[in-house]
Amino acid sequence: MKEIKIGILGFGTVGAGVVEGLQKNGALVAGRTGIKPVVAKIADLDTTTDRGIVVPEGVLIPDAMAVISDESIDLIVELIGGTTIARTFVLEALKQGKPVITANKALLAEHGVELYKVAQENRTGIYYEAAVGGGIPILRSQRAGLIGNRIESIYGILNGTCNYILTRMEREGLPFDEILADAQKLGYAETPPDLDIDGIDTAHKTVVLASMAYGAPVPMSAVSAKGIRGLSGEEIANADALGYRIKLLAIIEENEGKIELSVEPTLVPKNHMTALVNDSFNAVFVKGDLVGDTMYYGRGAGRLPTASAVIGDIMEAAADKVHGVGTPVGITMMLQKDELEYCAAGDIEKRCYIRLAQGDLEAAAAILEKHGIGMASVEETTSVILTQRAKESSFVAAMAELGDAVRLRIEDFEEKG
Amino acid sequence: MKEIKIGILGFGTVGAGVVEGLQKNGALVAGRTGIKPVVAKIADLDTTTDRGIVVPEGVLIPDAMAVISDESIDLIVELIGGTTIARTFVLEALKQGKPVITANKALLAEHGVELYKVAQENRTGIYYEAAVGGGIPILRSQRAGLIGNRIESIYGILNGTCNYILTRMEREGLPFDEILADAQKLGYAETPPDLDIDGIDTAHKTVVLASMAYGAPVPMSAVSAKGIRGLSGEEIANADALGYRIKLLAIIEENEGKIELSVEPTLVPKNHMTALVNDSFNAVFVKGDLVGDTMYYGRGAGRLPTASAVIGDIMEAAADKVHGVGTPVGITMMLQKDELEYCAAGDIEKRCYIRLAQGDLEAAAAILEKHGIGMASVEETTSVILTQRAKESSFVAAMAELGDAVRLRIEDFEEKG
Repeated sequence: MKEIKIGILGFGTVGAGVVEGLQKNGALVAGRTGIKPVVAKIADLDTTTDRGIVVPEGVLIPDAMAVISDESIDLIVELIGGTTIARTFVLEALKQGKPVITANKALLAEHGVELYKVAQENRTGIYYEAAVGGGIPILRSQRAGLIGNRIESIYGILNGTCNYILTRMEREGLPFDEILADAQKLGYAETPPDLDIDGIDTAHKTVVLASMAYGAPVPMSAVSAKGIRGLSGEEIANADALGYRIKLLAIIEENEGKIELSVEPTLVPKNHMTALVNDSFNAVFVKGDLVGDTMYYGRGAGRLPTASAVIGDIMEAAADKVHGVGTPVGITMMLQKDELEYCAAGDIEKRCYIRLAQGDLEAAAAILEKHGIGMASVEETTSVILTQRAKESSFVAAMAELGDAVRLRIEDFEEKG
Repeated sequence: MKEIKIGILGFGTVGAGVVEGLQKNGALVAGRTGIKPVVAKIADLDTTTDRGIVVPEGVLIPDAMAVISDESIDLIVELIGGTTIARTFVLEALKQGKPVITANKALLAEHGVELYKVAQENRTGIYYEAAVGGGIPILRSQRAGLIGNRIESIYGILNGTCNYILTRMEREGLPFDEILADAQKLGYAETPPDLDIDGIDTAHKTVVLASMAYGAPVPMSAVSAKGIRGLSGEEIANADALGYRIKLLAIIEENEGKIELSVEPTLVPKNHMTALVNDSFNAVFVKGDLVGDTMYYGRGAGRLPTASAVIGDIMEAAADKVHGVGTPVGITMMLQKDELEYCAAGDIEKRCYIRLAQGDLEAAAAILEKHGIGMASVEETTSVILTQRAKESSFVAAMAELGDAVRLRIEDFEEKG
């Protein structure tokens, strides 16, 4: 049987999960694929902390560059995170012609173009299934099963931390700050939590999904991103009474050649599958012109779910190496065009939920009408207005006149006319 | 750019869909993958009917063997269906070392072992994503993204016709026979409808999923299959009142090395995602030991959704051919062991819904107790009993004494102790 020697950079939660997963199921994987995965070296500055995993003497070393340069090692798994030394190590591995497996969405969103091009120049690949949707094989579905489709839209619940917080706020009726603090204590949210709760992590993943769907590097600046920070329990209760739940939703949509990229807390109908995506689960809805609506659901983070995705990539990189594939589709797909055309933030059409701080609904109606925003329904007791579809720029102008009011997007997942 | 020449056998609904899909998105696919797909020949006995698709003069011919033997053709797409001439053609193509793409679940379930072995002997592959779940990339997820996982269970809604009928019975409150007749008129059900509504088609797909999950050919006889024929609207209404919907559910589950394979109409909780899978949609829930719960959803049939899966396979087979992969993982995974151990039908544990024809609930309770079946709840007005978990053999024995009664499985998707 062929053997593939793996070098892992970063022996934290996910690194230890990958080693545990391969110890547990390595023989099963070898039987299925005909290739035996062997963890040859692990690099981490901390070589002493007990990760609950036993590795043979000499496997865990502090020097990442030594692992990359070790000629016996076939592929490199980057699980350090961040965009500084991770970038240096990934570039070095690629320049040595070694395939890289990574779960690092920030790195791909910030430096993807550079990395994909270096991979291509060196006839090797980057494999990054674990960067989006944790254990869900969503990128693989996009670049293989759905390869024949023009992608019409992608909707995603992509951040487990935000979804966990929203689910608990809804179930327990407690305020955002309290749930966030508890989530940090339990390890479901990081300190500081900004990347997650301000929507940046979701925007990183949106960039990766959109790049693959439309074949060109997408800059972070193309995404209009808002997070869930400070969301009030009142919104969750009002949404519930109106038949909606609130999710941090990524929206990727092509209309007449222009691509909309949004991340924002959004009201979704309770009878739509998004509303059943709870706790730290993720889900991605992909609509293709041939296949129609599809959906992929699973754990968006966590030690073993992420390890599952990393191991899938390791075995694909291993097979590609054995067969001399060179640069895989996951790289060539990202580099088809130099740039894309985006829908300006102000031009994005949406429905909205607006809650007035002061309850003068008549005055509010007049302001909305002035800005060409139709009303779909009005709740007098809660001072909530659900609008018709209108442009973001109209909402921004109306909100400036409405005074203290809260606005959230509504997504009904209906065909647009 | 590399070119791959495709020979299609069968120019029916799906065949025409594949040609349409490639005409529409062929350039897009070529840009993404670096391989240009070219439909070189199509074989169909009927060369005159208008399929709404224009193909160049000389492409459509009546002789399938001529297409298979054409040396310029790289791969064969079998879309004839059935298990007789389709088998002959697939075997012939494989013996000539040509990869075969097929959507034919009956062929795989009945003759899979033979075909996989012939593919392996000839160092080529069969690609069959479209055989299960229509456009959903479920098999690809299983054999790539989830390759590192031991599969604990798979639950599937796998037959679009049954799901369409059940959804309409529920929405319209009309009887089974009436909806079936209408579904046949609308082309959602075939005439005769037996393969679909008696659960055979779902069992075929169950065999393919289980073979891949557990690495050995699974005989059809290992599946306990019941369909939805004659299901009464009363059951749907009663289930609704109790918080359930009825779905034709395939269940694949490993317990202590023994595999359960069931297909039966099953009550699923309304707040579980299965309950939101409506119309002709399919969904597959896969639980892996690393990844945990995952779910895949999309159109389980239809011209373009199936074409989407076939085109995905064409491009994978093309890449494998270009890179000289030989026998792909989709074949080696099916041939790891010679046989598996199955849970006997009578030993399968489940909860049930029982509706008595005569309303003597006390006598019924005594019978159930005698057979060791606990009751979870009793609905006096409808004479419905929901039971605790018990063995199928106990239910069979109790039913023999209960007289005229209806029994359906309940699946709560909870962890079993």
